[in-house]
This record gives sequence, C-alpha cells and structure tokens, in this order.
Amino acid sequence: MKIGVFGTGMVGQAIATKLTTQGHLVMMGARKAGSARSRDWVARAGANASEGSFAEAARFGELLFNCTNGAGSLEALTTASAENMKGKVLADVANPLDFSKGMPPSLFVCGDDSLGERIQRAFPETRVVKTLNTVNCEVMVDPARVPGDHDVFVAGNDGEAKARVGELLKSFGWKKIVDFGDIAGARGLEAYVLFWVRAWAELKTADFNLHLVR
Amino acid sequence: MKIGVFGTGMVGQAIATKLTTQGHLVMMGARKAGSARSRDWVARAGANASEGSFAEAARFGELLFNCTNGAGSLEALTTASAENMKGKVLADVANPLDFSKGMPPSLFVCGDDSLGERIQRAFPETRVVKTLNTVNCEVMVDPARVPGDHDVFVAGNDGEAKARVGELLKSFGWKKIVDFGDIAGARGLEAYVLFWVRAWAELKTADFNLHLVR
Repeated sequence: MKIGVFGTGMVGQAIATKLTTQGHLVMMGARKAGSARSRDWVARAGANASEGSFAEAARFGELLFNCTNGAGSLEALTTASAENMKGKVLADVANPLDFSKGMPPSLFVCGDDSLGERIQRAFPETRVVKTLNTVNCEVMVDPARVPGDHDVFVAGNDGEAKARVGELLKSFGWKKIVDFGDIAGARGLEAYVLFWVRAWAELKTADFNLHLVR
Repeated sequence: MKIGVFGTGMVGQAIATKLTTQGHLVMMGARKAGSARSRDWVARAGANASEGSFAEAARFGELLFNCTNGAGSLEALTTASAENMKGKVLADVANPLDFSKGMPPSLFVCGDDSLGERIQRAFPETRVVKTLNTVNCEVMVDPARVPGDHDVFVAGNDGEAKARVGELLKSFGWKKIVDFGDIAGARGLEAYVLFWVRAWAELKTADFNLHLVR
C-alpha cells in the first residue's frame, strides 16, 4: 500500500520504517520537501522510502499517519490540505502535549474535547482514527517488547476506517485491539497520556503498556 | 482502628461498610451530623458504625478517607478542619469530575495540577495519599470482582502514609499496589478517569481495571 507519514520525529520514523520493512511504499512528509531528517531517513530506509512536503505525502498516501507534534498537528494537516486527504483514512498518533511549563508535560486540551476531535472537525471528509498514542514509539511498532497481554485502542467515527487501521496494527504484532467508539474516545486515550508519563517516570522504562482486565 | 470516612455517597458507603466488616470502628462524616443518608448507613452497618459532622469524623479517625464529591472536597475538608486532620493520613479517593456540561464528565483540573495536590497544599500537615480513584466503588473494596492481575495505585509525599494505606488496600484484597511517587502522581491517576469513563461506556460494565504490563 502507498502510505503517507506526516512527521519526521521519532514517532514518524518508527512507523515509517516499520511500514517500509513490511513492503509498503512510504512517503515521509515534512514542512518542506528535502528536509535533512527526511533525507536521512530515506537514505536509511531504502527503496520503499521517499520524502516530500506534507501536501506531497498526503497526495501520495492511500492511508495517512499523523505523527507530527500535537501542538503543530492542525497547522501541518492544513498544509497537507483537506483536498489531498479527502476520503482517506488518517491514523492520528499525535498527543496534545503542552511543554510550556516544562516537564512533566501537561495537555493543551483535556476532558471536554481532544486533538483527535479537533482534527476530525477541521477535516470532516477525512476518516480520522485515533490510535497508538498510548504507547512509546518503539512499542507501537513492536508490541512484543512488552511481554504478555496488553492492548492498543482505536477511536473514530468510521468503522471501516478503524478496521483498516486495525489490520495494520495486527501486522505490527498487536493482538488485542480495543474499539473505543467514536472519535470522542480520543479524550480518554489522550488523557491517559498523563498517566503514561507518570508511569514512565516511576517505572523508569518506556517498555510498558496497559491491559484492560474485566 | 478508628477511621473517619468523609462522604455519604456510594463511594463513602462502600468503603465505610467494608471497614466495619473488617472490625474497624468507622464514623461517617457529612455536612451536618444526623443526615438521613448517614443514619440509614449506621442502621445497616451495625455496631462498628457511627456518624457525625465532617469535623466530628475528622476528630474520631486515626486515619481518614475523602470520599466526597471532588467538586466539594476542599470545602468539606475545610469544614473538617486542618486542626482535626493534623498529622493524620488522608486517603483521597475523590475525582475532580466536572458535570457542568453534562455527560460524559470532564475534569475541573487536568494536567498541570490535581485535586490531590490541591488538598495536600490546603492541608500541609495532613498526609494525603491519592488512591482507589481509578476503579468503581464496588471494585475498590472487592478487587476479586475483576479476575486476574490488575493494579491499584498510591501517590503521596509521605512513604509511611502510603505504607499504611497500602496495608488497608491489601486487607481489601488488593494484590498489586503500584507506588506512583509523590502527590503529583495524582495528575496521572485523576486524568486516567477520563479513560475509565470511556472504557466504562464501551465495555458496558464497571467491573474492569487496568494492569500495567512491562
């Protein structure tokens, strides 16, 4: 499949690399085509990898990943353009982290709205699926780093979009995919990140995840 | 042990009842002594149960539970009085739920502060331990309602206070108690409630909990 990955940071690189190793054709999108980070990534990732602007990656991908910094996601996606993302599935991995008061981060939206919902409202013809934001980027693409049963979540308004993202998640090695309902489920998934940040500080490792037990 | 439980709602009743069945002497505290809900509870709970005002329950208890509505906790504890709670362990079970916009609730503090921290700042000579706010009240006092491994958390500035609360949690049946560090850990534990609320809506049961897997 042709996949566009927005963002050149650790999350974007982890997901883009995983997808190329699976045989997908991946274009990494950045503010401008030819960014140093994108070109470095293409050099490492090989024949299935390419890079371009956000708009080029949006046009390229049949399916898209938002791996930009949460604070800049809406601007990045606006640059990618609604027209280029129209009808497409956008897996939204970003978190609304607010580092303005230092560490640990807070959230710039919490409780009565979410970044996932803001993106869905801004791009009503794109099928947004919030997912993977509840784990570290290394665990995202290699869930077996954490032994035993643990879960990943999908939230979105479009069931078929969630199913398509779910297939990709299974290909990453995820065994348990919990449907968190419509895109408002992003409120819970994003708020959980405050719990994650604290657990990370206490456990002194990012190789952990939660398992919903019932 | 003599224990004061602030709050006459479902959470307060669940915890107070559990404690009386374990042989503790429990005074339920309410805005005013002699409230209908407190008197009903005493009638059901038997010889180990008594009721009074917040201040009377604070004086009575060697250890205290805050089971009031989060939006009213600081006012209730002010009525209980810093002097009556001085030096005592306060297990803070309340959540900063904001129902002002209807269901699902939001939080009136999120990310850069927490209700647990507000309580600790307001009552610096009380040893606040955030705990049990991450599960339904029935699971709080009977964790075996959820099968398998799952966790409860404690956050607070005083290690000995966390150990004392931990002993009570073990007596409730909790097997895995995760130390979430100082009282700022309440930020993660309270934000998790937004995740809990969504999971509850999707799972259609409150008999669930999380297990931190690493």
